[in-house]
Amino acid sequence: MDRRVRCYDCGKTYRLEERQRCSCGEPLWFDTDADAATFEWPDDDWTAGMWRYADVLPVSATATEPMGPVPGATPLVRAADLDEYAGCSLHLKPEGQNPTGSFKDRGTAVGVAYGRRDGHDWIGTVSHGNMALSTSAYAAAAGLEAAVFVPADTPTERLELIARHGARIFRVEGDYGRLYAETLALETDGGRFVNSDTPLRVAGQKTVAYEILEQFRPSAPDAIVLPVSSGGQASGVWKALRELETAGLLDSEDVPRLYPVQAAPCDPIATAYREDRATVSAIEPGETIAVSIANADPPSGTRALTAARETGGAVVSVSDEATREAMDRLATTAGLSVEPSSAVALAGVRELSRRGELDADDEVVTILTGSGYKERYDVDVESRTRTIDLEAVERELAAVVGS
Amino acid sequence: MDRRVRCYDCGKTYRLEERQRCSCGEPLWFDTDADAATFEWPDDDWTAGMWRYADVLPVSATATEPMGPVPGATPLVRAADLDEYAGCSLHLKPEGQNPTGSFKDRGTAVGVAYGRRDGHDWIGTVSHGNMALSTSAYAAAAGLEAAVFVPADTPTERLELIARHGARIFRVEGDYGRLYAETLALETDGGRFVNSDTPLRVAGQKTVAYEILEQFRPSAPDAIVLPVSSGGQASGVWKALRELETAGLLDSEDVPRLYPVQAAPCDPIATAYREDRATVSAIEPGETIAVSIANADPPSGTRALTAARETGGAVVSVSDEATREAMDRLATTAGLSVEPSSAVALAGVRELSRRGELDADDEVVTILTGSGYKERYDVDVESRTRTIDLEAVERELAAVVGS
Repeated sequence: MDRRVRCYDCGKTYRLEERQRCSCGEPLWFDTDADAATFEWPDDDWTAGMWRYADVLPVSATATEPMGPVPGATPLVRAADLDEYAGCSLHLKPEGQNPTGSFKDRGTAVGVAYGRRDGHDWIGTVSHGNMALSTSAYAAAAGLEAAVFVPADTPTERLELIARHGARIFRVEGDYGRLYAETLALETDGGRFVNSDTPLRVAGQKTVAYEILEQFRPSAPDAIVLPVSSGGQASGVWKALRELETAGLLDSEDVPRLYPVQAAPCDPIATAYREDRATVSAIEPGETIAVSIANADPPSGTRALTAARETGGAVVSVSDEATREAMDRLATTAGLSVEPSSAVALAGVRELSRRGELDADDEVVTILTGSGYKERYDVDVESRTRTIDLEAVERELAAVVGS
Repeated sequence: MDRRVRCYDCGKTYRLEERQRCSCGEPLWFDTDADAATFEWPDDDWTAGMWRYADVLPVSATATEPMGPVPGATPLVRAADLDEYAGCSLHLKPEGQNPTGSFKDRGTAVGVAYGRRDGHDWIGTVSHGNMALSTSAYAAAAGLEAAVFVPADTPTERLELIARHGARIFRVEGDYGRLYAETLALETDGGRFVNSDTPLRVAGQKTVAYEILEQFRPSAPDAIVLPVSSGGQASGVWKALRELETAGLLDSEDVPRLYPVQAAPCDPIATAYREDRATVSAIEPGETIAVSIANADPPSGTRALTAARETGGAVVSVSDEATREAMDRLATTAGLSVEPSSAVALAGVRELSRRGELDADDEVVTILTGSGYKERYDVDVESRTRTIDLEAVERELAAVVGS
């Protein structure tokens, strides 16, 4: 079980305890290719969640017993009523149905289980949103202390959900990108930082792609479209596809194209793609409603860019206006309320169809990373609401629904 | 598929179109006993959610295609770290992982699918919380108009989640219990009210018990503890147990005892149980933090009371203080954030253990009906938060976690 971590780019390997990032500068992931070679679709009950894929994970659920929240096994929803809007045959993967309402639970579960197996007392993370909440909840269930580092100006209201789970919260004055990198380089005892693109987190995040491919059997989707911030999730999805190819469960000509999508006001990876550059560099960000993915200096940006290129995909960015529209369509047509950072992916699908990257015949899976119910948005409630008397119910109803 | 509805009490049957409540005054449920007699645990994939149990439902998922949100298949979590607190062997069923964050999705899915099959244009409901949100979301996915009737004083902030899905919202001045009953008696075309304890909703709600019993195989839990408001969910759970007995999948001596729990400030069913009365009557309610279950005149109160008695269970109520404590324990020990109305169930488990109704050896399933992330609560964020400089991260971390 003492698996090594490997650089996707230069191929160097290390023990996880040695480094969470390669000396060449690129991020690492677990070297699970040997396990993947013998992997077969599991017979286990889906109610085990993502732990069904324990054979290709660096740790199993038994390390976290008593188990706590169970991430994964989210449904795959065919959303035919949105096909015309999307310009393709659309499938949605609502990751908001994970226990803390976002895709982050998958990586957290692996990070916490691994820490518990190592006898750790605490787990740390640098985040002000979904990842902080997820880490706090799973740490609580595993009996570990959670140390959460957020930007100093994070609104208290947003921290309330995190504080419920008993986390220690640090508001940090200073550069957030530096904080992210420096916490990973700390010499710590009794704990470890599991930030967004670290090997443990990427290992967990890859299970979403295992699920999508299993749910799609016997065929495979033509494309997977997902929002991208640090690049950790895109890296995990890419790794899963490579492993499934290694396992002989996915033919090389059937590997889905990966399309990471960003919000236009903060799109360093899309910028690098557009300018045909080999690596991603930091940009000066603008404001966006997609706060969860506004990362101006993504630590796995180059890896996500490579994932898109190697699979024949692309990286695009979308306006906040397009994101708002996609969010509204998801809520009113598919019945799914998502955060703006998730709606970015559907807006991206539409944009990719416009550009001819996706065809009407393409089977496209869009990963909706987080629930929209954790925040209130600027929705016009009054225009949809009438105040009436009890006696008027029948008449008012008839006027509205024509009954 | 044109199944009849039957009174659990006097046995009279009707077509659903005729009545949603028996002429004797008691509520109806679908007469699915014949289907239950031949029911076997399904082989289907769990990612089909509760539609795995379509054989015992009045309608199948195909009636809602394209499918929209997929309810059910929530995990069953063993929470051993809470055994001492609970006084028994505790299992949790986190229904907050349903698409709109609550158990209501199960009944809604059946109601909407049935309406769509009938060629309806709209669906109505009387609710200001989880049920209104759930109905709005599933109606949107099925292309039906949702008409939601709320008390006139419902805060706009709470309605925002509902408005997102495009529902028509009516703030109604007047008695809420009367509104509930009168909407069910309306002669309507092109739509139907699916309120909390109606036959369609009870049919969907029963799937949670099918899941629990399937997840527990080959044994069965000794008890199921759940919050109760209208009594619709408790009725559904009871019906499922009866059906599984009919199917020969549950021995009569293994039928779990049912324990509905209420908030003490508004506990008409617990009051009737305590006073050993045959039926439940309306009470004058006090204020409680468990707003979702504060029903002073529960339409299926007597049915829920009967369910508890017939299975050898009981009905209890708990103080808001006990509910707050249980909510905190769930968040900090099991990593599960729930609404107060769900925490009531765990507080109830503790109370039942104190009274000797539950033993340390009892395997007890507690249904956590809704996610806590849809609202903000009064949590002391500041005491868990420190503002620090980037340079101080290592020192501050060490001080807190002892690394």
